[in-house]
Amino acid sequence: MTMTHDHRVPVTVLGLGPMGQALAGAFLDNGHPTTVWNRTAGKADDLVARGATRADTPALAVEAAPLTVVCVIDYDAVHAIVEPAAGALRGRTLVNLTADTPERARGTAAWAEENGVRYLDGAIMTPTETIGGPEAVVLYSGREDAYLEHRATLEALGAGGVYLGEEPGRAASYDVALLDLFWTSMSGLVHAFALASAEGVPARDLAPFARGIGSLLPIVIDDFARNVDKGDHAADTSALVSALAGMDHIAHASRARGLDTGVIDAARAVARRAVEAGHGADSFSRLTETIAAPTSPA
Amino acid sequence: MTMTHDHRVPVTVLGLGPMGQALAGAFLDNGHPTTVWNRTAGKADDLVARGATRADTPALAVEAAPLTVVCVIDYDAVHAIVEPAAGALRGRTLVNLTADTPERARGTAAWAEENGVRYLDGAIMTPTETIGGPEAVVLYSGREDAYLEHRATLEALGAGGVYLGEEPGRAASYDVALLDLFWTSMSGLVHAFALASAEGVPARDLAPFARGIGSLLPIVIDDFARNVDKGDHAADTSALVSALAGMDHIAHASRARGLDTGVIDAARAVARRAVEAGHGADSFSRLTETIAAPTSPA
Ligand SMILES: NC(=O)c1ccc[n+]([C@@H]2O[C@H](COP(=O)([O-])OP(=O)(O)OC[C@H]3O[C@@H](n4cnc5c(N)ncnc54)[C@H](OP(=O)(O)O)[C@@H]3O)[C@@H](O)[C@H]2O)c1
Ligand SMILES: NC(=O)c1ccc[n+]([C@@H]2O[C@H](COP(=O)([O-])OP(=O)(O)OC[C@H]3O[C@@H](n4cnc5c(N)ncnc54)[C@H](OP(=O)(O)O)[C@@H]3O)[C@@H](O)[C@H]2O)c1
Repeated sequence: MTMTHDHRVPVTVLGLGPMGQALAGAFLDNGHPTTVWNRTAGKADDLVARGATRADTPALAVEAAPLTVVCVIDYDAVHAIVEPAAGALRGRTLVNLTADTPERARGTAAWAEENGVRYLDGAIMTPTETIGGPEAVVLYSGREDAYLEHRATLEALGAGGVYLGEEPGRAASYDVALLDLFWTSMSGLVHAFALASAEGVPARDLAPFARGIGSLLPIVIDDFARNVDKGDHAADTSALVSALAGMDHIAHASRARGLDTGVIDAARAVARRAVEAGHGADSFSRLTETIAAPTSPA
Repeated sequence: MTMTHDHRVPVTVLGLGPMGQALAGAFLDNGHPTTVWNRTAGKADDLVARGATRADTPALAVEAAPLTVVCVIDYDAVHAIVEPAAGALRGRTLVNLTADTPERARGTAAWAEENGVRYLDGAIMTPTETIGGPEAVVLYSGREDAYLEHRATLEALGAGGVYLGEEPGRAASYDVALLDLFWTSMSGLVHAFALASAEGVPARDLAPFARGIGSLLPIVIDDFARNVDKGDHAADTSALVSALAGMDHIAHASRARGLDTGVIDAARAVARRAVEAGHGADSFSRLTETIAAPTSPA
């Protein structure tokens, strides 16, 4: 079956932070009549200049299209926006691209079910600049009928739309896990720049090597994934005890320069716990089990 | 000036953990007569089978070559090995590829200076599998004359040798900063797998998306580096307050599944401090300054 993308299908976007603006812009770029609303109305100005229609309330915005996308800071904001528009949403599709926890995604799905709203929960895994292009990754879970009906329209957001099944919390489960990797890595990155800077190394000198470190990730990700799924953490070329020694150096060097060491200290505590439990010769991937059983004895 | 690489120059390697074995193997592969020593002698067996000569003591090993590479778990181990061999090292070059802090690198350089040892401190930024190949990255700092003399021999370790100048702590400064990024990211990775697993998502299903997250790093690294060097952390498309909301979701989802939340809690504490100091609209790169001034008021 080939699907022809009908560019005349109207779309509504609620929430015009950096991401909401990118989403609405991508729909506009694909020719969709796009209605927008944001709590702070002025954030719609650029989009209106590009052809979007500004609605005065979320309910009026919702009534303009069969498909509404909401993307705001969290689910409290989502509910503050969509609950007063529940009547207008009845029988329509709501795609919630706001990030929050799996539990909250399931809660919002239950609310939608009760109110006759066809609900898809989603998560955007790439930055605003990617939206509408080949690199965008957007995960969806929830009502399959709603996904199939609006899939072609949602493709305006980029090539990488992935449907993960009916369980409405699934996209959020991926999202929190991937954001966990992302924000923890970012915390390491800012700390690395702070430490280099304290050592007199400009960020631009460190950056090419930092990119090199980033390029190691794919290999390690696949290696750890195999260990985790097998439940076998035998190390081949790099042992946990050696990692812990490295982490100790980072902490000592940071403390010597008066830097905050909260993150690396917390990371060391997990590694030390695993070493003390006798896993020092294992792969770093062993820590997945240490993290999952934080209070269990050795 | 073209340099011809003399493959007959003898080399000594002290320490035969996974990395020391990789280093000695690369010298052997390039035809260098290679003498090896390790505290646990049996770890030399494979290398001896490949043509290496086993020495009974570090001093005897050092005497076999103008260039000695040491690579063990930390500088305490380095000193335990090289101090008894100080007499043999006098006038020779010692390249220390063990990871430790910049302070310790400077201390070992001072010890070498006092003992008439030509000293290069180094740091290996890539895993054992890369050694000898195009992807290996090895940083050096310290005695430039020693580096220039042995550069061609050290190229056996891989294409990416970089000399960072005479200051002996320089390679270690890069090293701790880059390891900071690496091990903090790894801590995020194992936590992400633990969280996905607790949510019923197998590691192999998360892995392709985790690789996607990794591929975002180069863009962010360059963006943050510019901000850090300018001291200007204005956000364009993603604000600290939005990052903090995301980190809160990770912590809540993790706690709901009974996981250890030490690392993400520590990361949130830094972000929250910056938001409370009025930097919520800034880029995440602002945290470099929060980390550098851990106790300063807003
Ligand atoms: N930016 C990115 O690169 C990126 C990438 C992937 C995913 N995401 C996700 O996309 C979502 C939106 O992010 P964002 O970058 O656009 O910015 P954001 O700062 O997370 O959200 C800003 C939006 O939330 C609205 N908002 C906040 N509190 C509200 C409330 N109580 N009632 C109504 N609206 C409220 C704001 O309205 P006002 O304008 O009136 O304040 C604005 O529209 C987040 O879940 C984020 O994690 C963003
Ligand atoms: N493996 C990697 O992928 C990698 C990547 C980059 C950098 N590095 C760095 O390379 C260095 C070596 O790492 P590695 O992976 O080979 O393993 P490691 O576990 O860090 O070090 C093992 C080596 O240290 C020796 N050692 C430990 N304590 C000693 C002591 N008190 N006296 C004498 N020798 C002692 C061991 O001897 P025994 O065999 O007798 O125990 C063995 O030779 C570390 O600084 C590491 O950070 C490693």
